[in-house]
Amino acid sequence: MTLTTAFLGLGAMGTPMAAHLTRHAQATDGRSLVWNRTAARAEAHAQTYGSELATPDSLAEADVLFSCLPTSADLDEVLAALPALKRGAVWVDCTSGHPDAAPRQAAALAERGVAFLDAPVSGGTGGAVSGQLTVMVGGAEADLERVRPLLDAFAGRVIRVGNTGAGFAVKAINNALLAVTLWATGEGLAVLGRSGVKLGAALEVINASSGRSNASQNLIPARVLTREFPATFGLGLLAKDAGIALDMVNSTHSSAPMLAQTAALMRAAANIVGSDVDHTAALRLIEQMNKVVIE
Amino acid sequence: MTLTTAFLGLGAMGTPMAAHLTRHAQATDGRSLVWNRTAARAEAHAQTYGSELATPDSLAEADVLFSCLPTSADLDEVLAALPALKRGAVWVDCTSGHPDAAPRQAAALAERGVAFLDAPVSGGTGGAVSGQLTVMVGGAEADLERVRPLLDAFAGRVIRVGNTGAGFAVKAINNALLAVTLWATGEGLAVLGRSGVKLGAALEVINASSGRSNASQNLIPARVLTREFPATFGLGLLAKDAGIALDMVNSTHSSAPMLAQTAALMRAAANIVGSDVDHTAALRLIEQMNKVVIE
Amino acid sequence: MTLTTAFLGLGAMGTPMAAHLTRHAQATDGRSLVWNRTAARAEAHAQTYGSELATPDSLAEADVLFSCLPTSADLDEVLAALPALKRGAVWVDCTSGHPDAAPRQAAALAERGVAFLDAPVSGGTGGAVSGQLTVMVGGAEADLERVRPLLDAFAGRVIRVGNTGAGFAVKAINNALLAVTLWATGEGLAVLGRSGVKLGAALEVINASSGRSNASQNLIPARVLTREFPATFGLGLLAKDAGIALDMVNSTHSSAPMLAQTAALMRAAANIVGSDVDHTAALRLIEQMNKVVIE
Amino acid sequence: MTLTTAFLGLGAMGTPMAAHLTRHAQATDGRSLVWNRTAARAEAHAQTYGSELATPDSLAEADVLFSCLPTSADLDEVLAALPALKRGAVWVDCTSGHPDAAPRQAAALAERGVAFLDAPVSGGTGGAVSGQLTVMVGGAEADLERVRPLLDAFAGRVIRVGNTGAGFAVKAINNALLAVTLWATGEGLAVLGRSGVKLGAALEVINASSGRSNASQNLIPARVLTREFPATFGLGLLAKDAGIALDMVNSTHSSAPMLAQTAALMRAAANIVGSDVDHTAALRLIEQMNKVVIE
Repeated sequence: MTLTTAFLGLGAMGTPMAAHLTRHAQATDGRSLVWNRTAARAEAHAQTYGSELATPDSLAEADVLFSCLPTSADLDEVLAALPALKRGAVWVDCTSGHPDAAPRQAAALAERGVAFLDAPVSGGTGGAVSGQLTVMVGGAEADLERVRPLLDAFAGRVIRVGNTGAGFAVKAINNALLAVTLWATGEGLAVLGRSGVKLGAALEVINASSGRSNASQNLIPARVLTREFPATFGLGLLAKDAGIALDMVNSTHSSAPMLAQTAALMRAAANIVGSDVDHTAALRLIEQMNKVVIE
Repeated sequence: MTLTTAFLGLGAMGTPMAAHLTRHAQATDGRSLVWNRTAARAEAHAQTYGSELATPDSLAEADVLFSCLPTSADLDEVLAALPALKRGAVWVDCTSGHPDAAPRQAAALAERGVAFLDAPVSGGTGGAVSGQLTVMVGGAEADLERVRPLLDAFAGRVIRVGNTGAGFAVKAINNALLAVTLWATGEGLAVLGRSGVKLGAALEVINASSGRSNASQNLIPARVLTREFPATFGLGLLAKDAGIALDMVNSTHSSAPMLAQTAALMRAAANIVGSDVDHTAALRLIEQMNKVVIE
Repeated sequence: MTLTTAFLGLGAMGTPMAAHLTRHAQATDGRSLVWNRTAARAEAHAQTYGSELATPDSLAEADVLFSCLPTSADLDEVLAALPALKRGAVWVDCTSGHPDAAPRQAAALAERGVAFLDAPVSGGTGGAVSGQLTVMVGGAEADLERVRPLLDAFAGRVIRVGNTGAGFAVKAINNALLAVTLWATGEGLAVLGRSGVKLGAALEVINASSGRSNASQNLIPARVLTREFPATFGLGLLAKDAGIALDMVNSTHSSAPMLAQTAALMRAAANIVGSDVDHTAALRLIEQMNKVVIE
Repeated sequence: MTLTTAFLGLGAMGTPMAAHLTRHAQATDGRSLVWNRTAARAEAHAQTYGSELATPDSLAEADVLFSCLPTSADLDEVLAALPALKRGAVWVDCTSGHPDAAPRQAAALAERGVAFLDAPVSGGTGGAVSGQLTVMVGGAEADLERVRPLLDAFAGRVIRVGNTGAGFAVKAINNALLAVTLWATGEGLAVLGRSGVKLGAALEVINASSGRSNASQNLIPARVLTREFPATFGLGLLAKDAGIALDMVNSTHSSAPMLAQTAALMRAAANIVGSDVDHTAALRLIEQMNKVVIE
């Protein structure tokens, strides 16, 4: 059976993810359509990887459609503009979306005979390029099984975490925890810096001890202590994700003082330091708050 | 040269640490003295490992004295009660102590001709038994070099982080970060639990993603999701350490809202859930706050 | 001109508010209809004050309809069940509602030719009985002017704060500030109590000083220090209002760490101490957190 | 009996307080000595009010000595430099001092036969000028009775709140509550401003409702909404006081998440906005965090 896939949203993550699907199509006699709001990116993808530019007609033939967009609102726009979809298709949204959007989007697609999976990913651009992303899936198990071979094209692990929206929920909490660890480690280093402790040595200790995290091990040494702050994942997007986590806190009537505070601090950092800088540049606000440089 | 060491404080950490020093003495023709407030523990150590019960006379012959006590106040008591020390000796305090105490204790020992290193450890009882602890040292480099071969008896890594007090400072910040990651991950799981997400799968995703930490990888799966909460490191001690970190924040006039909040929540947890339970049982307070079970 | 008013929701606030409208009707030859989910309360109101039990037919004749319900969701239910309304009528919702609900409810009523004002009140049951409530109004100025004489029947002050939803917004922020002052003063007294300070004297000082608030002046002395905690305004409702404020923070992409933390603590208090107790009983959680009694 | 008083520290508060004591001396045949680190201020006081410049000899004759300094560390310096004091004198420290300093200072003075009262004041420069300050006193009741007529010279209320240090403790908590109410009201207004609500009207409502505080009633309308921020009480000093409150939290092993967060935010504001600006300018940080102007 020849399978047609479409990939909508060719950003820093989407581009290599779609490339894996294109290679998969080339190896299995399938078709790999690509689309991007700014068309030049799609054209470049087609030229570089041999994917096919999507058209309204070809999208209507897609068996599985992937989207990877900045926010759930962007998917809402895309869905509103789509002319026709193949009944029986599956839509896999890899956006770091909002759990409240998922049931609404699933219902809208169900009316058109299309199944919906929320399937955000983690692993960064490195994981996307190497095809080793982690995919967290919300939705029906049967729908997941239908697309699993395709997910395997760019994923190292595919984990179903619950029903529609659960994927977005876990992604939002994961990113909120990224924000917590990043910020808290920054605070700790600021205090140590003001105490005259050598921060490189302190971080080496922490990374061999119980307070370590992905942020302390992989982000702060390479991005903050070096003063490089290379812009991969934007601070504005992390603030958005921490805000989604806080929406979840509120809509489930939960009590999560630390997640709540983190959302506030990330929002403040994005407003004061900037939205487009790397998310690790949130620590520049800590530096201002403490008149210290984390280096 | 025959070296005499003494080890004061044979708790869960001190017992295996002192055992390594005893083995080292046995291999190098040295003497290994041990002391404990409750004498029965010292006697058991002597019987089990072949160490020697310390007496006032033998302590006065010790070249290097180690202490590993619950708090800096306990060391103050021990120091006040000591009859005589050998001039030129080095005191290595492995307590998770208070940075403010270190200069005071160093000065008191200096008057007796004894050098002081604050040298708290991390790695837990497992690391102590296997001799793979991480030691973070504050004090003079020359003093550290004199005792480094002894530290290597129980340590996998020895890192000098600064002057007197810097070791305690890094330890306090590390443990505050342990408290942050533990609590924040607990909050995240509580929210996910109230959203109907499967927590084991969610944690599996987080542990393959950017929000992971030592707490999410090693503590919560083994101790909380299993509902076992095995009491190794007490919640009261973690609350104490978070409080030391907050003291540092305040005495350095730093701004650290997340560390401050964590100290408050750990203190609340110790008061409501109990001081003697395992530190991971702090999440039982999150469960009460959210009427949910993290399992 | 004979005016017909209707009042829906005869709780602790609504009952005396509706009574003022009934007296106003009696003085101006108008009609005063009342309705309550539990009909017995409406019957009691009619007997006590001379109001008229509302019927579908008489509601369709009402010129101005007031509602005072626990939450915006309750108004949604009421609106969905209503058979007919008079074109040109004004609906005045005195619920402590959600700013997001107001535009939706206004639009639904506009389709039926009815104007909408969000008009929550403050002043407590005391202010309701004495007719000295403060009303904060969101909506069109012209609509407010049409109903202002009726609002004056139970209000000491009527202040228009902005367009549709602004009344709910101000009410939510006010109640969040009530939560902040209540909780923070409780924390301060707990610390002072643990320091051995006499709390009555401390509160007397604070109430003559810059840290005073309505909570410190009127609530804590009368309700907490006396250990009476008389249940007027429920802790669950205050937690709900703090949650609405947090929803506003999030939907406006604001950074408000203190309001966020307060919402978390109020939710925790409602879950641990109970929803139906007086809102001042939130301080019982502070007492547990600190092993101290605020008396 | 002719009474000699001395007043040390002629700042914005001390100057009018000392003037009241001078007037009291003039009316009762007493002597009123004044001292200031910068001597010109004392000379101006003597010329303006008829007080007497203090000398080492005349200070040794003082029956009651008042101090009103920026911090407890300043009093430590003053005490260390004093040549001689009259046995049986009483030292009244009106500094917003640190509870931990009081017992130490009381003990040092007791060795010289001088009693100590910690007696910070509230009411601002307005209250100091009008002689209507509130004095919160820690120390022995008998010592307070000996100086009460003098305190009445500048105080509207004198309230004993406990033993040595209790005055400082209550003052620190009061000022921390001032910081809480100021900041939280600022957050609320920022959120309302971003929602398009008219802030003047919103504040009018809050000040007639349950969320009101001294900050919302007296500080924000006059100092923030007007954009004047007149520098009376410096932001750095408020940050210091919030820090003292946090020291108390920690030294009493209390759990006070909101006071802790406030101390962090005030410290951040002082570092980012400036130490010497008026304390209400802390809200300028909220404005930066939210890209909004509170006007």
